[in-house]
Amino acid sequence: MPANDTIYSAVKNALVKDGWTITHDPYTVKFGGVRVHADLAAEKVLAAERGSDRIAVEIKSFVGPSPVHDFEEALGQFLLYIALMKRADPTRKLYLAIDSGTHETFFAREAIRVAVEDYAVSRVIVNIEQEEVASWIG
Amino acid sequence: MPANDTIYSAVKNALVKDGWTITHDPYTVKFGGVRVHADLAAEKVLAAERGSDRIAVEIKSFVGPSPVHDFEEALGQFLLYIALMKRADPTRKLYLAIDSGTHETFFAREAIRVAVEDYAVSRVIVNIEQEEVASWIG
Repeated sequence: MPANDTIYSAVKNALVKDGWTITHDPYTVKFGGVRVHADLAAEKVLAAERGSDRIAVEIKSFVGPSPVHDFEEALGQFLLYIALMKRADPTRKLYLAIDSGTHETFFAREAIRVAVEDYAVSRVIVNIEQEEVASWIG
Repeated sequence: MPANDTIYSAVKNALVKDGWTITHDPYTVKFGGVRVHADLAAEKVLAAERGSDRIAVEIKSFVGPSPVHDFEEALGQFLLYIALMKRADPTRKLYLAIDSGTHETFFAREAIRVAVEDYAVSRVIVNIEQEEVASWIG
């Protein structure tokens, strides 16, 4: 599991390689008296565009002592962003970026799989060493 | 905003005063390779029964430097618990316990209100000084 800064720059580079233009870093959502952005959170979120596609990407490294707690933090931030983006920036789609190792191990556990399905958490899986997008899911 | 331990014992005492019997402290959900319990999380969760009603209560103090980040943590843990309880303990209902001050200020913000509504976060509002349940919502 790579450190925070490593996955952050690897995801950015992977998105650019995949044809995306980074438009906001960090990406901030403002709605109804709350401004949600990277400074307040364990996770960084950026925004990108490719043609007419507009996305936001929450980058999560799962480097804490408890991956379950890391997941809870990531899920809470993801879903708060969804709730606010739905109202403030409704044409942008949110993805959770995770490294391919975490995807193949922690996210393969049934408990995490059902939560990801229940809450429709779209993911972009990134190969950190090669700085390449491995897959988009959901 | 009271400290973690203060709200924790105040919520427990308020539930007992309200006629509940604390049956698990902490309350652990096990499902599909993940055990979610208090040690892994910023928030404590307990279980209680009153007659045929069975509940779990996540206790959240909002004492961190960012209430938005505290909310993301609480929301993520709440929804992971919901996903696992739905499968492992489906007759128990989950509530988020918050103190009445936080309920009247932070939870009154439109951004928090819409997130709480979108994700159907049931809440038990506790008067910490009097150690009494003020209201059940949702």
